Amino acid sequence: MSDHSPYANLVRASQEIAVLGSCASLLGWDEQTYMPRGGAEHRSAQMSLLAGMVHEKATDPRIGDWLSQAESQPIATKPDSVEAVNVREWRRSYDRSTKLPRRLVEELAKATSLGQQTWVEARQAQKYAQFQPAFETILHLKREEAACLGTGSGDYDALLDDYEPGVKAADLAPLFETLRQGLVPLIVAIADAPRKPDATVLERDYPVDRQQIFGELMAANFGFDFERGRLDVTAHPFCTDIGPGDCRITTRYNPKDFSDAFFGILHETGHALYEQGLNPAHHGTPMGQSVSLGVHESQSRLWENAVGRSRPFWKYAFPQAKRVFRDALHEVELDRFLFAINEVRPSLIRVQADEVTYSLHIIIRFELERALLAGDLAPGDLPGAWTEKYQSYLNVTPANDAEGCLQDIHWSAGLFGYFPTYTLGNVFAAQLFDKASRDLGDLPDQLERGEFSGLLGWLRKNIHQHGKRWWSDELITRAAGTRPDPQPFLNSLRTKFGELYGV
Amino acid sequence: MSDHSPYANLVRASQEIAVLGSCASLLGWDEQTYMPRGGAEHRSAQMSLLAGMVHEKATDPRIGDWLSQAESQPIATKPDSVEAVNVREWRRSYDRSTKLPRRLVEELAKATSLGQQTWVEARQAQKYAQFQPAFETILHLKREEAACLGTGSGDYDALLDDYEPGVKAADLAPLFETLRQGLVPLIVAIADAPRKPDATVLERDYPVDRQQIFGELMAANFGFDFERGRLDVTAHPFCTDIGPGDCRITTRYNPKDFSDAFFGILHETGHALYEQGLNPAHHGTPMGQSVSLGVHESQSRLWENAVGRSRPFWKYAFPQAKRVFRDALHEVELDRFLFAINEVRPSLIRVQADEVTYSLHIIIRFELERALLAGDLAPGDLPGAWTEKYQSYLNVTPANDAEGCLQDIHWSAGLFGYFPTYTLGNVFAAQLFDKASRDLGDLPDQLERGEFSGLLGWLRKNIHQHGKRWWSDELITRAAGTRPDPQPFLNSLRTKFGELYGV
Repeated sequence: MSDHSPYANLVRASQEIAVLGSCASLLGWDEQTYMPRGGAEHRSAQMSLLAGMVHEKATDPRIGDWLSQAESQPIATKPDSVEAVNVREWRRSYDRSTKLPRRLVEELAKATSLGQQTWVEARQAQKYAQFQPAFETILHLKREEAACLGTGSGDYDALLDDYEPGVKAADLAPLFETLRQGLVPLIVAIADAPRKPDATVLERDYPVDRQQIFGELMAANFGFDFERGRLDVTAHPFCTDIGPGDCRITTRYNPKDFSDAFFGILHETGHALYEQGLNPAHHGTPMGQSVSLGVHESQSRLWENAVGRSRPFWKYAFPQAKRVFRDALHEVELDRFLFAINEVRPSLIRVQADEVTYSLHIIIRFELERALLAGDLAPGDLPGAWTEKYQSYLNVTPANDAEGCLQDIHWSAGLFGYFPTYTLGNVFAAQLFDKASRDLGDLPDQLERGEFSGLLGWLRKNIHQHGKRWWSDELITRAAGTRPDPQPFLNSLRTKFGELYGV
Repeated sequence: MSDHSPYANLVRASQEIAVLGSCASLLGWDEQTYMPRGGAEHRSAQMSLLAGMVHEKATDPRIGDWLSQAESQPIATKPDSVEAVNVREWRRSYDRSTKLPRRLVEELAKATSLGQQTWVEARQAQKYAQFQPAFETILHLKREEAACLGTGSGDYDALLDDYEPGVKAADLAPLFETLRQGLVPLIVAIADAPRKPDATVLERDYPVDRQQIFGELMAANFGFDFERGRLDVTAHPFCTDIGPGDCRITTRYNPKDFSDAFFGILHETGHALYEQGLNPAHHGTPMGQSVSLGVHESQSRLWENAVGRSRPFWKYAFPQAKRVFRDALHEVELDRFLFAINEVRPSLIRVQADEVTYSLHIIIRFELERALLAGDLAPGDLPGAWTEKYQSYLNVTPANDAEGCLQDIHWSAGLFGYFPTYTLGNVFAAQLFDKASRDLGDLPDQLERGEFSGLLGWLRKNIHQHGKRWWSDELITRAAGTRPDPQPFLNSLRTKFGELYGV
């Protein structure tokens, strides 16, 4: 006999929604990797049908009934128990889904679909004015969404909560201010430093097939399980989880650039290790799902930067890289290579930014999107405000809107409150890496020997296996021993780049 | 305002079922092409959920109501009209779906899933006895299915009807007998012929990347639209239609064998040209779907054999093949190559059989599965009966069950009544090719010039665009001008192989 308690019904409904959603994930992956161009229109019909079915299942009134019943039962009240966590998260997600009128959901889907197309065209034309009308519509709808979910149309927290549960703009603002105050002098010092890296060593001939094999090798060394995942090529790298045993990452190769594909692979590997480390027994329920974008990004940044751009890792990996890329690296020494992959240079484009300047790109977006949502910044004034902030924070000036406020897809897709999670990821990563180093004792030695299982095991135990048990604030506090705090990140940058640049 | 007539409701339901089914098609394609091994278990959960949803939608009682209403309206009674065809086919499919009790559907799904696993193991072990218990269960359930759908548990027609609507075993038996009587003397004459082909020219070094490019080139020449499809590698070649604008074929490459991949590509291209030739305006309704497996196979066989193994085609293609496969073909002449790709040799394995002996493999299976279903052949006696027929029809004896009655996956998957469609395909293909040749006048000259659009246009006009308007008997009669008839197929074989072998 199957169990027909409210909780068991919720588990089944949650799993069914997850399986159906995972079909859409596979379709989305295929769309970016292998779908012939002619399949685009039908693919959008498929995605739309699946999204509608998922939404229907997620807002089924029976879920509301089962939740009310489950919430009053002892099983759901034992703190931190699997059942209590699942019920809490189901409630959260059911309330969010049912608070949004279907009309708004549909209008947003339409406006952001159209918005992304318009954004592509406007970016090509380098003209924000082409995008502005679509953007105004999206902003209007997102303000309506914020009002439905939160306290009013300017309630940034209501949107942020979708990506980073529990975190508030009021927490982010001082954290970002501390970061800004720490980063700006470091950037100035680096700009004035007498030593400069020679990044041209990364722009030699790196045959694509060898890049792929070397990237797969290092991803597998980190612990990515290619029996339960794969690596493909897409225009924009990503990681997507299809289900337990099937997590896929992508990258893009440039035969004249080592960094782009390689660090992209390490980054997506970090995301994938989180997905592959979730407890498959909880698949389809919150306890088996990643907790937030910030925590997800902490995993990708940790493996990409704290490990992948570190001296200990390259003490292990560089001799192998020299064997694989004989021609490009034949006369290059470790120090020269390490300095090259850690070049700091204030720039206009976020996705090309280095570790030190990256957070300033995020702070700019956070400040602008809060002002937009609050109505303090008119959409027509965005390009000017953008340029002003880039001049002030990074001392660079966009030549046009394409390298200015049109560079990111996020706002055209309705993603407001998403950007801060990138920087939270860097902050969390530094805290976790510090604590893991202390707990493991000889982490640098392990990395030098090419042993990554100690670090991965630590992350599995302290982060991955917990799923959504605790939101990021508590999860990081428990794992790192301190609350979310930008100091370890600032310290790690000062130490590493101080040594490299001699500042 | 959207139209809420019963017919319009049926169109929407039909399209939604088709879109949902096409999601399963994409998942199935991915399973064979790129899915990591670890994804198998979750993939089966995804497939099972989608299949259940499709079944639920297909048997929704509202469809029965709408059908009853639509059937009494003038729109559905005008013969051959789009609406009449769709209503007729929806009725057919609704009745079939609702006649089967859910318990039987689920038991069959389970038994055939298990059956295929057991079959793989038994085939590896070369022991039919290992498979027999699972096979008995499947046969028992298929007999129950035949009883639900037709006149009784031995009603072969009830199962055949799923693949080839309207065709009866009583039509097939004399057709197959005529074929047998025509083929056996031809095979004997060829065996005694003094001339023999040298098939070793096909077993030289054919680099896989060149095979792929040459195969894609010829598929595109035939008319396969790579903007609306793609070619990938799988263990077993197939063609799958994901939706309008997205039809995918697969093949497998052996660097020491030219034939396997190349003719596989032409075969699947034939299937794909049918799918790409359906009317996209009717997508998701019977008028936009292929009519039967026999007609589908006629398209693949026509392009693979009537075109792809013909002298006119190779007059065009061989000079190009010699340039692409310089080393393998440098001293080979057209005649020698043409004879090699048309070697006739009675053999044990159906999928490796040549054009002349292939039908005998099918006739054997048709006779055996009818006897099994009727209860005239006990499952325990299958291997003996199999050997007896192979000795009698093809003068060869399987050394074990793997090259005997365990070679095909079909029965383990519950596919009874499927095999005859392969031979119907050959028969229809010859009739269509004859009529197209007469209508086009200079088809051999067109093929020699590498012009395939005349033939494709003829097939589009006479076959593809009609969808399920007429079942195969009427469709072939209208297109070829004669009822289904094995003589054109026999004549084409006598002419072609008579010339090659000098008999």
